[in-house]
Amino acid sequence: MPNPLFNDRDVEFALYEILHADELCRLAFFSDHTRETFDLFLQSSRKFARDVLFPAYKPMDDAPPKLEAGRVHVHPLMKEIYPRLVELGMLSATRSHEVGGQQLPLTIASAAGAYLAAANLSAAGYLMLTTGAARLIESFGNDWQKEHFMARMYGGSWTGTMALTEPQAGSSLTDVKTRATPLEDGSYSIRGSKVFISGGDQDMTENIVHLTLARIEGAPPGIKGVSLFAIPKFRVEGERFVDNDCTTAGVFHKIGYRGLPSIALNFGENGQCRGYLVGEPNRGIRCMFQLMNEARVGVGMQGVATAAVAYQEALEYAKVRPQGRRFEQRDPAQPQIPIIEHADVRRMLLRQKAIVEGGFLLLLATARYFDLAEHSEEPAERRRANLLLELLTPVAKSFPAEKGFESNVLAIQVHGGYGYTSEYMPEAWMRDQKLNSIHEGTSGIQSMDLLGRKVVAEGGEALRLLIEQVASSASSARAAGVDPAWCDAVERAGSLIAGLTAELGARGLAGDVAAMLLHSFDYLDLFATWVIAWQWLVQAGAAKRGLAEGRAADQAFYRGKLHAAQYWIRTELPRIEHLARLCSEGEDSYATIAADCF
Amino acid sequence: MPNPLFNDRDVEFALYEILHADELCRLAFFSDHTRETFDLFLQSSRKFARDVLFPAYKPMDDAPPKLEAGRVHVHPLMKEIYPRLVELGMLSATRSHEVGGQQLPLTIASAAGAYLAAANLSAAGYLMLTTGAARLIESFGNDWQKEHFMARMYGGSWTGTMALTEPQAGSSLTDVKTRATPLEDGSYSIRGSKVFISGGDQDMTENIVHLTLARIEGAPPGIKGVSLFAIPKFRVEGERFVDNDCTTAGVFHKIGYRGLPSIALNFGENGQCRGYLVGEPNRGIRCMFQLMNEARVGVGMQGVATAAVAYQEALEYAKVRPQGRRFEQRDPAQPQIPIIEHADVRRMLLRQKAIVEGGFLLLLATARYFDLAEHSEEPAERRRANLLLELLTPVAKSFPAEKGFESNVLAIQVHGGYGYTSEYMPEAWMRDQKLNSIHEGTSGIQSMDLLGRKVVAEGGEALRLLIEQVASSASSARAAGVDPAWCDAVERAGSLIAGLTAELGARGLAGDVAAMLLHSFDYLDLFATWVIAWQWLVQAGAAKRGLAEGRAADQAFYRGKLHAAQYWIRTELPRIEHLARLCSEGEDSYATIAADCF
Repeated sequence: MPNPLFNDRDVEFALYEILHADELCRLAFFSDHTRETFDLFLQSSRKFARDVLFPAYKPMDDAPPKLEAGRVHVHPLMKEIYPRLVELGMLSATRSHEVGGQQLPLTIASAAGAYLAAANLSAAGYLMLTTGAARLIESFGNDWQKEHFMARMYGGSWTGTMALTEPQAGSSLTDVKTRATPLEDGSYSIRGSKVFISGGDQDMTENIVHLTLARIEGAPPGIKGVSLFAIPKFRVEGERFVDNDCTTAGVFHKIGYRGLPSIALNFGENGQCRGYLVGEPNRGIRCMFQLMNEARVGVGMQGVATAAVAYQEALEYAKVRPQGRRFEQRDPAQPQIPIIEHADVRRMLLRQKAIVEGGFLLLLATARYFDLAEHSEEPAERRRANLLLELLTPVAKSFPAEKGFESNVLAIQVHGGYGYTSEYMPEAWMRDQKLNSIHEGTSGIQSMDLLGRKVVAEGGEALRLLIEQVASSASSARAAGVDPAWCDAVERAGSLIAGLTAELGARGLAGDVAAMLLHSFDYLDLFATWVIAWQWLVQAGAAKRGLAEGRAADQAFYRGKLHAAQYWIRTELPRIEHLARLCSEGEDSYATIAADCF
Repeated sequence: MPNPLFNDRDVEFALYEILHADELCRLAFFSDHTRETFDLFLQSSRKFARDVLFPAYKPMDDAPPKLEAGRVHVHPLMKEIYPRLVELGMLSATRSHEVGGQQLPLTIASAAGAYLAAANLSAAGYLMLTTGAARLIESFGNDWQKEHFMARMYGGSWTGTMALTEPQAGSSLTDVKTRATPLEDGSYSIRGSKVFISGGDQDMTENIVHLTLARIEGAPPGIKGVSLFAIPKFRVEGERFVDNDCTTAGVFHKIGYRGLPSIALNFGENGQCRGYLVGEPNRGIRCMFQLMNEARVGVGMQGVATAAVAYQEALEYAKVRPQGRRFEQRDPAQPQIPIIEHADVRRMLLRQKAIVEGGFLLLLATARYFDLAEHSEEPAERRRANLLLELLTPVAKSFPAEKGFESNVLAIQVHGGYGYTSEYMPEAWMRDQKLNSIHEGTSGIQSMDLLGRKVVAEGGEALRLLIEQVASSASSARAAGVDPAWCDAVERAGSLIAGLTAELGARGLAGDVAAMLLHSFDYLDLFATWVIAWQWLVQAGAAKRGLAEGRAADQAFYRGKLHAAQYWIRTELPRIEHLARLCSEGEDSYATIAADCF
């Protein structure tokens, strides 16, 4: 059986039996849509992912883009694929008709995008980067920039990038050094070096726009002196494309995500690089951060997708690969059994299922909060959704990166010796996944965002809202007949986290931020474990309802949901007590160790 | 600073301050040796590892062996290196003078071998495979085989392999199908296919001997009909080397361990493959199993080494890479600080240290039990050491594979975006490490060996001995001034495990082996966590003694040990309570899920 990327039944379950995505059509912004148009969009993405993107994955992984004579050349398949990807309408799917978009909910666009990412992460990556760059100009650019840059990116004739990182600064954007000197025509002369610029060069579209952080001459030091610029690879002057002095200094040899080049990029080596200020001077970081949630939720879904495709591969392999016999049936004259009949293999598969499907639902739920935050007509609902979106974003970004990676490793293990070869696919997906704990803010940075900012913002209101939401999910699950012990466990975990957060927040308020954040990584781990337990409780409720309604064909699907819910709630959720103790006690083994003690 | 592979001070600490390896010289077999000869052997391996093997690692990883015109061609560097590796004396270091060995303890040979494996896993792999094959013939072969095969393998002019796995059987050796038909001269005609044969072909020595499992015509079905054969690539007939019909059917494209080819090997495609029975007919598995401990402990040390070299790389990177500032010092005008000054980076480093140095000591301690089991002059001590060796082997094999892999992943994470590129080394070590959870018995198989066999053997005597040993270590640690809470925690964990084991063993005795083994993987995890906690308790005791004795230069080293001990005992050890609950309750989410529910 060809790899389905995701289980379609599960996508339907998440979108319609749990999130009721069709109800979003009641909002004015989405009112042209119905479940039918959603499904058409999903179906075209799914089909393209399976028929075109997936077969191109391995060739693209095997032959990454090359730098020759100063230009990056992408895989020939990518050149064929990109225009067809554009036709799917993903670049501006969620944007307004005004900018050429389809006004689809992010909930639907994310689910469709998940298939693309599962099939071919690099191909999907170009879309995400371009959308992100265009979004920045849509939000903060002037009319000329919108016409000139945004429209071409949404239209697919140009691509976009995010040029943040510099070699000496890494994650520390406060240390950005790229310089912008004002010119008479209102543009700026740019000079500086960036690294890890994904899609920073390619030869499949006529132009590329780099959304770049730089410092205007005389700007204040630090983060408050950083501005946002649009820097095209080629300037359009009349009919002519003029080289804008953006030089590819090198291509990184990435271990995964290999169809998408990551380059070192120099601006203005010859003093001829022109940039255009987007938004106000010195507000660059603020602009970036306003779109950070969307980018991080996007990365989170890519992580889910990368774990999902590997899980599907391992599942199929376990069903068809015979090896060994049952403990009680050792007769060598009998045929061997498929490895899925060994409990330890089922353990590895169920763990993958719990991570993949739990993560998938979390990402869709987060996307739904995004939709409500942007488009609800009730200010109170917009505010609530935005608080929950902000709170869940670091979890949605990092859970698939961390546990999704574990899931990818298990897919290799299920394949045994074959999993250790590049003749089989799981090893490539493991390599792809590893990036997600590093880019768009490392998992460590996500943990500080969660504990240092999100859970304590506005007096902890977001966390209170989440706890309310979990309580409501628990009631609904109880009503549907879910084991009350599971419901209680998930609710109790929320109380534990509320108490712990208050305790840690008090340390910060007392001025000791280091003590507050010492175990931020453990905090993120326990928080994410709880949030995913909540997703499984919700699924258990829906599964119970599904079982009661009794469509015979779905019985196995719903029973599987109950198994995975049980696994997560009984096997994973109890881990949080110990993690909370570490946070609360401030276990200090690494707090104080000096560098020369290692 | 060049990568030191291991911290020499730590190796000295483990060998002499903890294991008192010099005391092994009191045994007759080792009586030619002193600490000085041990250190000379160590020093020559260490120097060769750093000067020759390590620089060859990346070229060999970049250009794996190729199959051309039916022969596998290894990297040119490997051809230069192998004779020099042989000169180090590692192939027969632990063997008797009688067979050309040096009668060194495995404790010392393992430590020396660890440097080789850390520097260049593939190069070290040839040694381990050859030693293993020669050992089988030393133990079970006849005089002709010893002279003909063993002496040439120990001498380094031929290499050896282990040819167990077959495509249709994988880990299920009971399903081996390779056939052996008796010939008139007492040899056998062999016909069959093997896969994943490491070192199965190469062009750096004149011959290769495959120690192969096959089934003699008419043998009983299953495991009791499998025999062991020596099958040379070339038969020596007089002065002539005659092709022995061993065909390389293909080379696997492995994701790591890339300097050592893994091949698909066909015996007797033309009916011309001759094999020589080693030991008695139908006793092949028994022969293999007698040497399994040594092979598994060898793989365990390779896992430790692969995590160690990555840890050293990450540690150095964290000391020299500036990025960001302290929470309380955010002034962008101030210089950035090395990332080791961020607590979250120290968390990642301390976790690596705890895994690497805890694992290293466990592997050496296991090697010491091996030395005592083979060479003690007291039968009671031999028996005790053998029981402990048997018990610890699945842990020593799988802990470095599982947690070492995690440690390798953390080394990438510490390197940030650079860690995601093959310009930096950590990603290669992660790829190397992944094999260790798969070959020589997967981690799942180790878990069933531990719980289904080792802890319940001889009425649980081995576990009782281990618990006694832990109690004795705890007393000694208390006397040295180690925090009594740590000592109590490690002892309490032993009692918990004893009770749990009795409970699970009773299920097996009652006939329900599946229930006994349902959570064997969790059992292995908790058992290993405890065993490593014991290793850290021992180290904490030695560190306290070292601090009290007060050599100023060593103070930081000893303090580091206390930090890592605290980390493992307070952060990791408490996890076992939840794992024990899962085992005891028999949490059944994956026990019963049907294949179509996934």
